[in-house]
Amino acid sequence: MTRVVAIDTSTWWGGVALVDSAAPEGVVAEAGLRVEDTHTAHQLRLLEQLLAGAGWSRSTVDGYAAARGPGSFTGIRVGLATVRGLGLATGRPCLGITTLLAMAEAFGPAEAPRVPLLDAGRGEVYGARYDAASSPPVEQRPPWLGPPSLAADGAGGPVVLFGPGARAASGSGPGRVGRTPSAVAAALGRLAVLRIEAGAADGEGLSPLYLRPADAELKRKRGSKRV
Amino acid sequence: MTRVVAIDTSTWWGGVALVDSAAPEGVVAEAGLRVEDTHTAHQLRLLEQLLAGAGWSRSTVDGYAAARGPGSFTGIRVGLATVRGLGLATGRPCLGITTLLAMAEAFGPAEAPRVPLLDAGRGEVYGARYDAASSPPVEQRPPWLGPPSLAADGAGGPVVLFGPGARAASGSGPGRVGRTPSAVAAALGRLAVLRIEAGAADGEGLSPLYLRPADAELKRKRGSKRV
Repeated sequence: MTRVVAIDTSTWWGGVALVDSAAPEGVVAEAGLRVEDTHTAHQLRLLEQLLAGAGWSRSTVDGYAAARGPGSFTGIRVGLATVRGLGLATGRPCLGITTLLAMAEAFGPAEAPRVPLLDAGRGEVYGARYDAASSPPVEQRPPWLGPPSLAADGAGGPVVLFGPGARAASGSGPGRVGRTPSAVAAALGRLAVLRIEAGAADGEGLSPLYLRPADAELKRKRGSKRV
Repeated sequence: MTRVVAIDTSTWWGGVALVDSAAPEGVVAEAGLRVEDTHTAHQLRLLEQLLAGAGWSRSTVDGYAAARGPGSFTGIRVGLATVRGLGLATGRPCLGITTLLAMAEAFGPAEAPRVPLLDAGRGEVYGARYDAASSPPVEQRPPWLGPPSLAADGAGGPVVLFGPGARAASGSGPGRVGRTPSAVAAALGRLAVLRIEAGAADGEGLSPLYLRPADAELKRKRGSKRV
């Protein structure tokens, strides 16, 4: 039995979850809130409430996990700093997990490869591609940043697009748009449980994940013109 | 803009959500907790926390909704009684929504008709079938209670099975098992917003939904033997 507290602050949806490998679906409690200003205050209060409701004392938590991006510059920093603090204070390992991977895990098994998409501003999206049904999802295309029209590139068949950036990309190739998964923090926690049980090093993935456009892809789309 | 507070207490997963028709995906906040004992105490505390976090005063809430089943006998009663109380105290309409319908809405668009399934105990499940992709989902087969082997009956093709009862039914016909949707309270709230905006009468659906096995189906499966 491994217990993890997970925090997702990589978008305007701030989520916290209590995950226990022994519970059905792995999740004991979760909460999320649309955050207009800053994440910290409300989320730590929600976390306290969940810990009390679930009857978890801090000493029974085996590790902490946060989303490492891509996503909101400030949100990701706040999330990673929070779990680093919780881990330091309790002597438990803390990890960072790629937001897009957690989104694919939260989406669950699909009939075609999964393409989570986040709005990156300026008409661009963050995306990645994972296989259709594995848990944890198997990466087929690493995280990238670019125009939504690239969303289905290289898939060689239909895909399922989902997430806050999916609407903009819906004409990018064969496939459909699925529901934006809401339980990203819970999925993050499930992935962290697997990593901790596999002996992940404390601090793994705690650096924020930044993305710059893949030059090669941009050049190909624009017909080798330099930009 | 319509604001609804939704409560789902029809299973061991107790959820609350704040839904606003003007918000992206319709959801402002949600929380869920695995409940071993009784739902009320923790859920009302979580609800207070969400209202505070979202900055909603009670006077801005346009209605209340609860899951009306099928599901836990006591949980459903608690949920319906809670929204009835909230509605009475504030003079706002309150509604009951079928749990399986909310599960299909929470699952979101799929590639085949959606079959939400709840564990009904004694080796049986509660099920229903909705079309593949509509929101709100269109009912193709009304809620039923029976053995999991009936889950895909009458679909005439592949279906997507999901929910706490789906594992038991996974061999019942063509199709796949999808992720159990966690945001059922949020989906319940979105459905309630649509009904309130369409002029639903206060108290609509507030009676618990009970199910008995459809005799016709049981007879057909058992080769017309009377049981």
